[in-house]
Amino acid sequence: MAIKIGIIGYGNLARGVESEIRRCPDMELKGVFTRRDPSSVKIKTDSVPVYSVSDLKEKASEFDVLVNCGGSATDLPVTTPEYASLCNIIDSFDTHARIPEHFKAVDEASRSASKTALISAGWDPGMFSLLRLYSNCILPEGNDYTFWGKGVSQGHSDAIRRIPGVKNGKQYTIPVPEALEAVRSGSNPELTTRQKHTRECFVVAEDGADKALIEKTIKEMPNYFADYDTTVHFISEEEFAANHSKLNHGGFVFRSGTTGLNGEHKHIIEYSLKLDSNPEFTASVILAYARAVYRLSEKGDYGCKTVFDIAPALLSPLSGDELRAHLL
Amino acid sequence: MAIKIGIIGYGNLARGVESEIRRCPDMELKGVFTRRDPSSVKIKTDSVPVYSVSDLKEKASEFDVLVNCGGSATDLPVTTPEYASLCNIIDSFDTHARIPEHFKAVDEASRSASKTALISAGWDPGMFSLLRLYSNCILPEGNDYTFWGKGVSQGHSDAIRRIPGVKNGKQYTIPVPEALEAVRSGSNPELTTRQKHTRECFVVAEDGADKALIEKTIKEMPNYFADYDTTVHFISEEEFAANHSKLNHGGFVFRSGTTGLNGEHKHIIEYSLKLDSNPEFTASVILAYARAVYRLSEKGDYGCKTVFDIAPALLSPLSGDELRAHLL
Repeated sequence: MAIKIGIIGYGNLARGVESEIRRCPDMELKGVFTRRDPSSVKIKTDSVPVYSVSDLKEKASEFDVLVNCGGSATDLPVTTPEYASLCNIIDSFDTHARIPEHFKAVDEASRSASKTALISAGWDPGMFSLLRLYSNCILPEGNDYTFWGKGVSQGHSDAIRRIPGVKNGKQYTIPVPEALEAVRSGSNPELTTRQKHTRECFVVAEDGADKALIEKTIKEMPNYFADYDTTVHFISEEEFAANHSKLNHGGFVFRSGTTGLNGEHKHIIEYSLKLDSNPEFTASVILAYARAVYRLSEKGDYGCKTVFDIAPALLSPLSGDELRAHLL
Repeated sequence: MAIKIGIIGYGNLARGVESEIRRCPDMELKGVFTRRDPSSVKIKTDSVPVYSVSDLKEKASEFDVLVNCGGSATDLPVTTPEYASLCNIIDSFDTHARIPEHFKAVDEASRSASKTALISAGWDPGMFSLLRLYSNCILPEGNDYTFWGKGVSQGHSDAIRRIPGVKNGKQYTIPVPEALEAVRSGSNPELTTRQKHTRECFVVAEDGADKALIEKTIKEMPNYFADYDTTVHFISEEEFAANHSKLNHGGFVFRSGTTGLNGEHKHIIEYSLKLDSNPEFTASVILAYARAVYRLSEKGDYGCKTVFDIAPALLSPLSGDELRAHLL
C-alpha cells in the first residue's frame, strides 16, 4: 500500500513535491491543501483533490504524511506545530538560528498526539548539515567551510525589489573561486565574509529612476550587501524574463582535517551540489525523509526528528538485503 | 566513563586506530591483541597492554568495543563472527561481493550473544556507500559514478611484486580527468573501464632482469591491468623509498540525476575525498562508528549493523540539542 502524502501550500516547493512524488513508486499524492479558494487552484495531477486548509483537521486521518510547504519566516513556526498534532508531518524550516525552538514546539505537539514529525529537511539545512555532521565526527580536528552558489538568493532578491525605482530584481550568490581553491588545497585559510562570496544583481529599473542611487542603495545595504563585493547590472524587462527566471542553486561543504600522531596527515572531504531547480531538489530530499517519517510512525517512534536522527536505510524503498548487496 | 576500545592486530589500520583514538575524548584504548608474541610488539601508547589473541576470550569482558583490524581476504570472514560472540565488534570488511554472507555470519553470532556488531566501516565500503545511498534516495532517476584515486592500490601493487625479476613495486590508480569532467557536466556519459581510470606503476627490477618482459607481463595481466591504459616506470630502490612509501588515496562519488514533470532539470551531487593517509582516515571512520556500536549495545539493540543502519547523531560525542543548535 502506497504512503499517502498530502501537500500544504501550492508554491514552488509544493509543485516540486507534486512532480517528484512521481519518481517514488511507494508513494501517492492524495490531496493538496490551500489557503486560497480551492476552486481557484489548478494543480498538475489529475484526480487529486484540492482542499481548503480549514478542512485539514477533518481530512488529516486520510493521510500518512503531510508535507508542509509554507515559508520559514512566519508560516512554519505556527503551522507545523499546529498540524503535527493532527498527522505525521515534515517541513523544510530553514531559519538556522531558530531551529531549537521550532524543534521544541513540534516535538511537544507530535509527541503528545503520538505522531512523528521531521523538521528542516532540504539541502541547507538538510544534506549540507548531514555532511557537516559526518565530517566532524570523522575528522574531529579540522575546519569547516560552507559556500553557497552560484545560485539565486530569494531574500537578497526581495531586498532589491523593495528599493524605490526598482521594478524587478534578482541576486546571485557566487563563491569566490580563489577561496574554493585555497580550501581545496588544505591550507586551512581564514576567510572573511568578503573573501568567500560575491553578489551579482540584475535590476530592471522603472522609467526615469535614478540608477546611480539604486546601485548605491544596494551596495551599501547593511547585512545584505555592505560586507560583500557586489556588482549591479541594469537590464531590460525582456532580458530579465529571458535569462533570469530560473531557480538554480548549489554550493559546497568542506571539512579540512588532520590525523596522525603529530597531525602530519591532511584530509579534505568535499561535498557539492549543482542544482538546476532548487525547489525540485529540496522536494526530492523531503520525500525521501517523508518515507522515513512514515516508517518511524508505524514503529511507534513518535516526536520530532531531524535528518541527524534518521538511519539512512529508512530513506530507501529497497530492503536491507538489497541495500547491502547493491549499494554498500 | 570512557568507551573502552580494544584493537585486534597491529598493522597499518590498527596503528591508525591507535593514533586517532587520541582525538576522541570519550574513548580510551585499553589493549591490543596480536597473533605474534606480545612481548615482541612495541606499540606507541604507553601503559596500554599488548595481549595474545589467545587471551581474547578471557579478556573480552574488559572492553566495550573491539576493532578488528584483520584483512578481508581470509581473516575477517573467520574472526569477526568468532569474536562477535564475545564482545561488541567493528570491522572494515571490504570485499563488496561477499558482504551479504559476512553480514549473515556476524549477525547470527552477535545476536545470539546479545552483542552489537558493525561490518564494512571505512570509506569504500563506508562513506562512499552512504553517499551512493543518500543520493539514490534523493534522485531516484539518474546515474551513479564512482572513481578511485589518485591513490595506492594494495592489490595491484602485490600483483606486480609477484612477477619474477621484480624487487619492489607500487601501483597508483588515477581517475581520467576527461571522464571526471564529463560526469561533472551532467552529460551522463557511458564510460568503459579504460575510460574511467589509468594505472601507473613504479617498479624496482632486480639486477639483470628483463625489463621489457616485466613491462609486457604487467600490461597484459588479465583483470588487473589488461583493461586499462597502464604506464610502467622503472626506478631505483632509492627513488622508490624516497617517493613511493606513502599511503595516500581518495576518490569521487557522483550522482547525476533529473527532476521535473518532464525530467527537464539536471542535478549533480559530488562527494570527494583527498586523503594523505588511507589507514588513518579509515580508522577515523571506524572510531566514529564504534561510538554508535557502543550506544546501540547499551540500548539493547543487538545484531549486525552497517553504516546504512546508523542514525548520524549516534556518531557524535555531542548531544542532540548541541547538534541541532550548531550543525543543523
